[in-house]
Amino acid sequence: MRKIVVIGAGAAGMAAATRARRFDSQAQITVLEGSGEYSRGTCSLPYYIAGEIDSARSLVGISPQTLAEMRIDLRLGSRVTSIEPAARRVHLGHQSIDFDRLIVSTGSRSRTVPLISQGTDWPRLWTLRSQAEAEVIKTALDRFRPHSVAVVGGGYLGLEMAEVLTQRGCRVTVFHRQATLMRLLPAAHQAIFSLLLERGVTVRLESEVKLIDPSSRRATVEFQDLSSGQRRSEGFDAIFLAPGVVPEAELLSRAGARLGPSGGVVIDSRGQTSLSGIYAAGDGVELPNPYGGKTRYVPLATTAARWGRVCGENAVGGSLRGPAPWGGLAVRLFDSQVASVGHPEDWSRAEEISVELGGNSPFPARGRSVALFLSEARGGRLLGAQFVGPQAAAWADLASLALQKDMTVSDFSELDLNYTPPLSHLWHPFLLAARLAEKFGRREVRR
Amino acid sequence: MRKIVVIGAGAAGMAAATRARRFDSQAQITVLEGSGEYSRGTCSLPYYIAGEIDSARSLVGISPQTLAEMRIDLRLGSRVTSIEPAARRVHLGHQSIDFDRLIVSTGSRSRTVPLISQGTDWPRLWTLRSQAEAEVIKTALDRFRPHSVAVVGGGYLGLEMAEVLTQRGCRVTVFHRQATLMRLLPAAHQAIFSLLLERGVTVRLESEVKLIDPSSRRATVEFQDLSSGQRRSEGFDAIFLAPGVVPEAELLSRAGARLGPSGGVVIDSRGQTSLSGIYAAGDGVELPNPYGGKTRYVPLATTAARWGRVCGENAVGGSLRGPAPWGGLAVRLFDSQVASVGHPEDWSRAEEISVELGGNSPFPARGRSVALFLSEARGGRLLGAQFVGPQAAAWADLASLALQKDMTVSDFSELDLNYTPPLSHLWHPFLLAARLAEKFGRREVRR
Repeated sequence: MRKIVVIGAGAAGMAAATRARRFDSQAQITVLEGSGEYSRGTCSLPYYIAGEIDSARSLVGISPQTLAEMRIDLRLGSRVTSIEPAARRVHLGHQSIDFDRLIVSTGSRSRTVPLISQGTDWPRLWTLRSQAEAEVIKTALDRFRPHSVAVVGGGYLGLEMAEVLTQRGCRVTVFHRQATLMRLLPAAHQAIFSLLLERGVTVRLESEVKLIDPSSRRATVEFQDLSSGQRRSEGFDAIFLAPGVVPEAELLSRAGARLGPSGGVVIDSRGQTSLSGIYAAGDGVELPNPYGGKTRYVPLATTAARWGRVCGENAVGGSLRGPAPWGGLAVRLFDSQVASVGHPEDWSRAEEISVELGGNSPFPARGRSVALFLSEARGGRLLGAQFVGPQAAAWADLASLALQKDMTVSDFSELDLNYTPPLSHLWHPFLLAARLAEKFGRREVRR
Repeated sequence: MRKIVVIGAGAAGMAAATRARRFDSQAQITVLEGSGEYSRGTCSLPYYIAGEIDSARSLVGISPQTLAEMRIDLRLGSRVTSIEPAARRVHLGHQSIDFDRLIVSTGSRSRTVPLISQGTDWPRLWTLRSQAEAEVIKTALDRFRPHSVAVVGGGYLGLEMAEVLTQRGCRVTVFHRQATLMRLLPAAHQAIFSLLLERGVTVRLESEVKLIDPSSRRATVEFQDLSSGQRRSEGFDAIFLAPGVVPEAELLSRAGARLGPSGGVVIDSRGQTSLSGIYAAGDGVELPNPYGGKTRYVPLATTAARWGRVCGENAVGGSLRGPAPWGGLAVRLFDSQVASVGHPEDWSRAEEISVELGGNSPFPARGRSVALFLSEARGGRLLGAQFVGPQAAAWADLASLALQKDMTVSDFSELDLNYTPPLSHLWHPFLLAARLAEKFGRREVRR
């Protein structure tokens, strides 16, 4: 009887455990989770705070009954302190557990922010990594009704929360170090920047937060305008920190596993780390690169769940290869959406084709949109895409499939896409991109 | 200087004319249109009646100024009576025009319905093939305020108008000869059938209309229940006819062009008919089959416009191949959508994989949905798909790309699709389909 131990009960860990059970009805499967939460829908937390999701129960993906039926021994509050690869044993303080195969999914941790330490228990300094933290924010919003909130970080979580907080009546200022939000290209950035402005959100770009001082009634954010070098400060009733994440790979690193440039654990195409019999998945790992270049750090729930499944199956004797991570990301932002697929680091020498669709249609689905396509050469192999507009997420899925199939932008001319007035444009942006590519002299009609 | 003549100023004809100009600045380009309308957005007409599109001008795709700038000589009210292929000449009654290349886009006509002839000028017997007819319906709805309306035909136009008429306050009954609406598979049909029922639309399936008698104040619809054989009749204040279309190929047929089984003109992969120098596109032609089998009759605006472009370019010396028609079709239906891709006639021996997604999410985009995938074998090569739900149209576009790329349903397990709670499901229906395929014993992870 195999002993499978999983560390971490997030998306990757739970996918691993359930998948292992599906392929091995005999294995002894133990999941060790340091916190008191498991299988929580982290991506849903902003909408739980917003009240769009009203039941905390619906945040949990797997019920305790299902776990019992699957004979998965989930131990909450069980923090692993070290791994002994040679002995095939994990330690939890003085206790230890043996394993035949280990799956590590310790996830990520927040980047640090410069904070005056005595303020860390200030009740309106928020992060959002757990349901417990979501409850803190919900309670604080109800009780203190903060008027002004600083959001530190203009990535997707920062922007989602900027929307939620705006809709809860707060006046939001987003501080972002880069010149564009969410690593967007200028045209896509400009579209959501305008959208945020229209909704009353202040966005401070190229603004590095130097110090947060929550030691008085209002917290002070000291920041530097990176273009002018000027240092300023501003006071807020509450602070939401979304500085981005880095891999949490401490346990495996100490055990001798190889790490990649981002600090994530390196795994092979079957999810195994450099330590035999030890697999890893989730926000703590670096993934193989579909383009064959550098490894990828893609801290997303879908990627975590899918590679978790791969590890779970392979830990019980499978030999499944993990899916290539194309880095798809979509966010709803007020009445629009923003989505990106591909990895901006591959785009340094890419050609950009930009399609703008006017918002003069009476149909919401045909509202103002921007579609940007990045390719090897004008009309050549697709490397990525970014979209803003009411259909951005769906377009990104289409681009993701195109990426996976090694399509060129010129190939899009062959696509047969729907047209129906309330739902879509007669000339889909993918078709328009192919036309633009063609105008610039490349012409390939391929079969 | 080439003389290009285009017959018909619909989607295909106007695309042909403008494309020809783009590639040949010298050619003399003449478009002959029998009616007084051109470049009208036929697909938008239901929404013009509904009032969602409020300006008739926005129904027209190309402005007269643009036509003038492009030196396209559009002659409305110019009905071609015959084509002389050998002499390269078209006749309009006594007048004739010479051509070097001819592009015929005469479109389709309605199937006939059994009608007592003296009633044809009854003011509430409607069809919808032109803006003029849309105006008739608009006016009649405002003036007569019909209470009950029969819609004859449960294809996409019938259902679009069932929605429009319901929202204009009419009580609608749809008569449909087949057992499922819109050629849908049972599970997809059942989903929109329920939806229509909830919205107060009566649907009479397997009901063949035997006679429409509009000779008194109310029109009588006599119909036969095909399952029981019983004949019944029912009175209505107005009748909307949407019996489907057949190719209008009279002119080319008389000129000796080869027709296909549907009665449409057969064209080659470059849009040329069996008559040298004569091209055809639009709802009057049959298209090459991407699967290599029988030709296709695909009377859709996107297909017409894209093959029109091909004809226009090739008529001035190009050698463009037309895009394969995957038969994508999407309709908004109240707060849901229905979409189909592929050709039901290819599905007789297909395996069906069905995914149902519950509607218990607070997010509209994750409302109740059905996704059906048809493949050569369980999990094998995709042959088509049908979707009902708030994202049906976008999913159909994804399926269309998958069809074009010869993907199997099992291949979907490789897709990296977006997950963000307000916009999409954690496990996209394409991924769930791949999982189901796998459960049934097929297992291919391909790279």
